[in-house]
Amino acid sequence: MSQRIERLIDLLLKRELPALLITHQPNIHYLTGYCAHDSYLLVCAKQNVFITDSRYIQEARENLRDVVVEQINKSVFESIAKIIKDLGIKKLGFESKNLVFLEFETLKKILGKDVKLIPTYDLVESQRVIKDIGEVKKIKEAISLTSRTFKFLKSILKVGIREIDIAAQLEHFIKKNNAISASFPLIIASGKNSAYPHASLTKKTIKKAGPILIDIGVDLEGYKSDLTRMFFLDKISLKIRRIYDIVLEAQNRAINQIKPGRPISQIDKAGREYIAQKGYGKFFGHNLGHGIGLEVHEAPPISSKNNDCVIPGMVFTIEPAIYLPGEFGIRLEDIVLVTNNGAEVLSGYINKST
Amino acid sequence: MSQRIERLIDLLLKRELPALLITHQPNIHYLTGYCAHDSYLLVCAKQNVFITDSRYIQEARENLRDVVVEQINKSVFESIAKIIKDLGIKKLGFESKNLVFLEFETLKKILGKDVKLIPTYDLVESQRVIKDIGEVKKIKEAISLTSRTFKFLKSILKVGIREIDIAAQLEHFIKKNNAISASFPLIIASGKNSAYPHASLTKKTIKKAGPILIDIGVDLEGYKSDLTRMFFLDKISLKIRRIYDIVLEAQNRAINQIKPGRPISQIDKAGREYIAQKGYGKFFGHNLGHGIGLEVHEAPPISSKNNDCVIPGMVFTIEPAIYLPGEFGIRLEDIVLVTNNGAEVLSGYINKST
Repeated sequence: MSQRIERLIDLLLKRELPALLITHQPNIHYLTGYCAHDSYLLVCAKQNVFITDSRYIQEARENLRDVVVEQINKSVFESIAKIIKDLGIKKLGFESKNLVFLEFETLKKILGKDVKLIPTYDLVESQRVIKDIGEVKKIKEAISLTSRTFKFLKSILKVGIREIDIAAQLEHFIKKNNAISASFPLIIASGKNSAYPHASLTKKTIKKAGPILIDIGVDLEGYKSDLTRMFFLDKISLKIRRIYDIVLEAQNRAINQIKPGRPISQIDKAGREYIAQKGYGKFFGHNLGHGIGLEVHEAPPISSKNNDCVIPGMVFTIEPAIYLPGEFGIRLEDIVLVTNNGAEVLSGYINKST
Repeated sequence: MSQRIERLIDLLLKRELPALLITHQPNIHYLTGYCAHDSYLLVCAKQNVFITDSRYIQEARENLRDVVVEQINKSVFESIAKIIKDLGIKKLGFESKNLVFLEFETLKKILGKDVKLIPTYDLVESQRVIKDIGEVKKIKEAISLTSRTFKFLKSILKVGIREIDIAAQLEHFIKKNNAISASFPLIIASGKNSAYPHASLTKKTIKKAGPILIDIGVDLEGYKSDLTRMFFLDKISLKIRRIYDIVLEAQNRAINQIKPGRPISQIDKAGREYIAQKGYGKFFGHNLGHGIGLEVHEAPPISSKNNDCVIPGMVFTIEPAIYLPGEFGIRLEDIVLVTNNGAEVLSGYINKST
């Protein structure tokens, strides 16, 4: 049994839960080391069972060790219910952030009165928040490829190319360099489009004037990166320069707040307050950052509402921004690893003064 | 108000539901014509409200007509609850296939006893099953681009190229031709990999021998395509030829069964029974096909369990297959439109005898 599954079982036993049905695929990936699709993992001290359908069963059988692999017969939940009853489980935890209402109702009906369903919350995610050495290594590799992608971008970014064509060429580069894919739909937002925090990709042509916001990431063996840099093809106007410097200073102030034991809300506050002091508070609406690992967005959120404390081994983005509707937007996004006495900016070597 | 929203409100009134909270993003796209992310749509005879957060609010305001656009303050469900209470709604439907258990519990708690939550099932999906002329046109355009992508594939497919590089080049081609992206992670499965129904992309090099299964699709203005063809770089062995012919005949038999009024299960049966007769029943595990439109997989499933009847305007795939583990797999996938007296194979002009 993997150490990760053992740790989870310890946690379950402390909560007097004999078994947990895992439906969130990145959690299954984390626990088994296998990147699964449309699958279910039943974790229980007696036996761990991976359940999937005919499309994936062969690949799963070849890749999974330490867990029993079962194929779905008839319906998913009937198959799961049979396994649960065969194992004599009377109380079953489920992932309340992932199981949809209809699945919950279906499972409850099939299991009947003999099995009690218990909603759980972030049991695997709470383990995933702290990255081990192997995970940090993989995130660093994903960042390194993203860095090379930014360099490649510089070779193709010119007046007249369309946003969509830049995205196509970057994705091509990312795959050629062995990442299975980009980690999210790449954001290539030029001129006024940069004022949309999550701009959709358009067929707009890159103009000489105005900033170009590039937010890209890769998926390398399941681990993700997510970085934003600003590019300019013309002399930078005084206003853009001023906004850029405010965002950069906000980012530095936030990073300087990162220290084990500090409330996460304080990191958000450091960045947000500086932007507000400069008069742009209402132009920065989203969280300051988010955890990253097997998912692009995972725990912890770097938000004013998150009063959890910073812990060594956390990996998250710091991405302050100012969006001026109808004009332009500036965002800078880096990935940090919390160390024993502060933060290591894993993407710090990627030039910000482009 | 859009006709689609009007039709939905009629349906709600018949069920004595004054309002429905829509959380499934393709349903919001269908009803509003706007491709949304992380958003909510409250449909109600009094007023329709689109709700999203600061990241998307500006773009939403610029793109949406006929609905009120509101930004989330504090938490999502507190904002939604306020709108619901202001509108005096006492009974609220929600999408039970989409809302996760935790969201349901949160919403229930915030709304309190004054508002009754009612699970609903496929209310928008049941409209989406029948495509209108505009939708069929968009699907045809997505198929046409997929056809050109197959032609482009022929120009790059050769011994020595890696599966992942083929995918990179196809995705590049798809974007260059104005599709926002591929509609799913492309399947490029050569030799033994073709025996996995949903093969993961690998760095494996294409060899001369063995079939190459290519399953690709594009997303063109929200509408998807999904087609599979087999490619060969060597003389086709007798065994492969025999299996190929069985799959092709199974597909033709299934397509010939398509007629308004017939149970969908009969289409599945026609393809599946033929494969079983030839002795390969246990090597074809998945459904015979699936609906396609704003989602790659949507209603109706073409399955032995689906006793709904075929209706003109349905669009779905027909994709029989035989997977021989450790050897190879053959799948052929086309998209059909149900007409008044049969089926039009929208992708029929794409050569199957490659």
